[in-house]
Amino acid sequence: MGIGNIIVGQSGGPTAVINSSLAGVFKTARDRGAGRIFGMVHGIQGFLDGNYVDLTQHVRDNIEIELLKRTPSAFLGSCRYKLPTVEQNEDIYRKIFENLKKLDVQHFFYIGGNDSMDTIKKLSQYADYHNIPINFMGIPKTVDNDLAVTDHTPGYGSAAKYIATICKELMCDNVAYDSENVTVLEIMGRNAGWLTAASALAADDDCKGPDMIYLPERAFDMEKFLKAIGERRKYAKTTLVCVSEGIKGTDGKYVCESAKSVIFKDSFGHTSLGGAAYYIADYVSKELGIKSRGIELSTLQRCASHFVSRTDVTEAFLAGGQAVRASFSGETGKMVLFERVSNDPYDIITTTCDVRKIANVEKKVPDEWITNDGTHVSKEMVSYIKPLIQAELSPFVVDGLPRHLCLDKNAILNCN
Amino acid sequence: MGIGNIIVGQSGGPTAVINSSLAGVFKTARDRGAGRIFGMVHGIQGFLDGNYVDLTQHVRDNIEIELLKRTPSAFLGSCRYKLPTVEQNEDIYRKIFENLKKLDVQHFFYIGGNDSMDTIKKLSQYADYHNIPINFMGIPKTVDNDLAVTDHTPGYGSAAKYIATICKELMCDNVAYDSENVTVLEIMGRNAGWLTAASALAADDDCKGPDMIYLPERAFDMEKFLKAIGERRKYAKTTLVCVSEGIKGTDGKYVCESAKSVIFKDSFGHTSLGGAAYYIADYVSKELGIKSRGIELSTLQRCASHFVSRTDVTEAFLAGGQAVRASFSGETGKMVLFERVSNDPYDIITTTCDVRKIANVEKKVPDEWITNDGTHVSKEMVSYIKPLIQAELSPFVVDGLPRHLCLDKNAILNCN
Repeated sequence: MGIGNIIVGQSGGPTAVINSSLAGVFKTARDRGAGRIFGMVHGIQGFLDGNYVDLTQHVRDNIEIELLKRTPSAFLGSCRYKLPTVEQNEDIYRKIFENLKKLDVQHFFYIGGNDSMDTIKKLSQYADYHNIPINFMGIPKTVDNDLAVTDHTPGYGSAAKYIATICKELMCDNVAYDSENVTVLEIMGRNAGWLTAASALAADDDCKGPDMIYLPERAFDMEKFLKAIGERRKYAKTTLVCVSEGIKGTDGKYVCESAKSVIFKDSFGHTSLGGAAYYIADYVSKELGIKSRGIELSTLQRCASHFVSRTDVTEAFLAGGQAVRASFSGETGKMVLFERVSNDPYDIITTTCDVRKIANVEKKVPDEWITNDGTHVSKEMVSYIKPLIQAELSPFVVDGLPRHLCLDKNAILNCN
Repeated sequence: MGIGNIIVGQSGGPTAVINSSLAGVFKTARDRGAGRIFGMVHGIQGFLDGNYVDLTQHVRDNIEIELLKRTPSAFLGSCRYKLPTVEQNEDIYRKIFENLKKLDVQHFFYIGGNDSMDTIKKLSQYADYHNIPINFMGIPKTVDNDLAVTDHTPGYGSAAKYIATICKELMCDNVAYDSENVTVLEIMGRNAGWLTAASALAADDDCKGPDMIYLPERAFDMEKFLKAIGERRKYAKTTLVCVSEGIKGTDGKYVCESAKSVIFKDSFGHTSLGGAAYYIADYVSKELGIKSRGIELSTLQRCASHFVSRTDVTEAFLAGGQAVRASFSGETGKMVLFERVSNDPYDIITTTCDVRKIANVEKKVPDEWITNDGTHVSKEMVSYIKPLIQAELSPFVVDGLPRHLCLDKNAILNCN
């Protein structure tokens, strides 16, 4: 009996390298003689609607595999969908497994964060309980780097590299004029400060790096902050402050919520974050009379593929490939993860771990990696991130711009 | 008699390649046997305070020239300073020429936009009137591309390349979820829409490009815009709208001013632009109930040197070098400019032009390069910009991040 057919899906927020994991799944499965290689369109949610593609028709040769590795965001489309429990809705499970049977799938791969690992957990448990011979493997992905057990997560290194690069460039810009200014840069991270901490990498021989870094792991004290800025202006003209979108004030409320009341009249009332930087910059202007600017990196930080970390791209590809290898060896209900064997020189091995240890768990920045006063990060933090941003992967540039591989929506199939 | 000493300054808003022009001045002057090569610190304003450096101490060898070309923002520091007329304040002229005499300067170079060319104009006229044997040459620079007479301006190509790249990446991100969304991207440009127009370059085989583009040359009609979005949603889930920061409503007011009344409580009352994207996105949410996101590219677009146009870097260097050549040949009161000999294949020549034709003039996007309905740009616009974004110049990457050359502030000299 051959290896059989496989299906792969992408889920959660896009990253610059989620497609490199897809390429790793595709190429490894193809090279190891898989039957047909299917892709879910818009993850498990789209697959419930029957939407899928035959990936071999869309990734036709090795140059397209390389293009896929250089394409940001989710090639197959993504979703934010929390699978209900069997008790809540068994029909959904019947539907998914019916579709998997129609496509004669033996191996199921899902690239995503801790919600996606919850999907792998539930589906693998269901298959196990009903003796359905399909293996389910998770492949880690998130710019937030908040997955448990694994040393780090694909997607983080490239976002970290982009953030540190932008910080260096902004700092060059900030000192251009001989005048006082405070720039507040808002970086993604609702509950975990990994991305914001990456701004600290900007410090090197040619750059002093951000002056203050505030992570959501600690409360943000506006009064103390203003006092610190007041002290700084005695000896420094410019200040770069990096804040997580998810920082909370001493009152426990998101700073961006205060921002929204001033700034955004959000008509849905949904809690999309953003605005903390503007709020803080505005506060500095008002209270201290210093020219201040808020900059929100917004989605740029998760989709910037024109200056990625080659280490990250390679590891993302590796994670995809190792998931295939593991599934073909009979593993199921597991996620591929990285173990750091050595930091200097940097060396990792991949292994697999029961998804139950990962699903729905959020890994925060260790308290000891934040300075005591909560305004910066430690050397340990920097030496943890640094290996992850090493080396570049040049985009394929056509007519001056990076070329991407994009899914032809007209070729989407339906098995419902 | 030798060539004598030279001095060079940078002025106005930073760009990704203003330092490449500085490198062009420095290397060409050095190679042609100039005496001492000085730099004004923070432009003419800093020089009035006597601040300067001996550039040979800061750019010590050819690798540092290459580093300088890859460093964003103004290495020497910049200023926004409008030189008064002689009638208004002759003391300032006396002071400047006194300092130039102290340093025994024979050639004066100023890299900047139309305000900076006004400085060249006034200083060269003063020198001429008083028979002072100093040549004054302007070197064009601005991300805004709004300088008259020249075909285009160094700094524009790299910003255009960055904007088009980010648009492509954002569009990959926008389609990740199977849900309706409108993204409004705000791009620099107070009165001229050149930068915003560059977003149109994103359209290619792999990308449909922005759906709507609004330049400040035409009034922005919110009602028509909402109606167009309402029509679009019948057949398209996602929309990317690119707007200039300087777009004005049909009432003639900056859209961002309306934005500020809602969004920013600007404590200085100064007219810094920004906020139009948030305002429009908020409006779309409220009126149509579509999830909308405003993204402000902010200063990132003028300081992103990690993915520049090699054409732009090379031309910026060339402009610096040609200014030196011209000054050494006895020209004064002129700016170097580009003439496009042929568009396909792209070919330019440099020449010089009396700064009086350039100072204080603002070149807008020709009306015929904007579509009749004012919601996009023409093919002519795209074919004008495309040659300017061609080819890349890799940063010198050290430990995963671009390395820059930064001025040692402790080595600043003073001649007052």
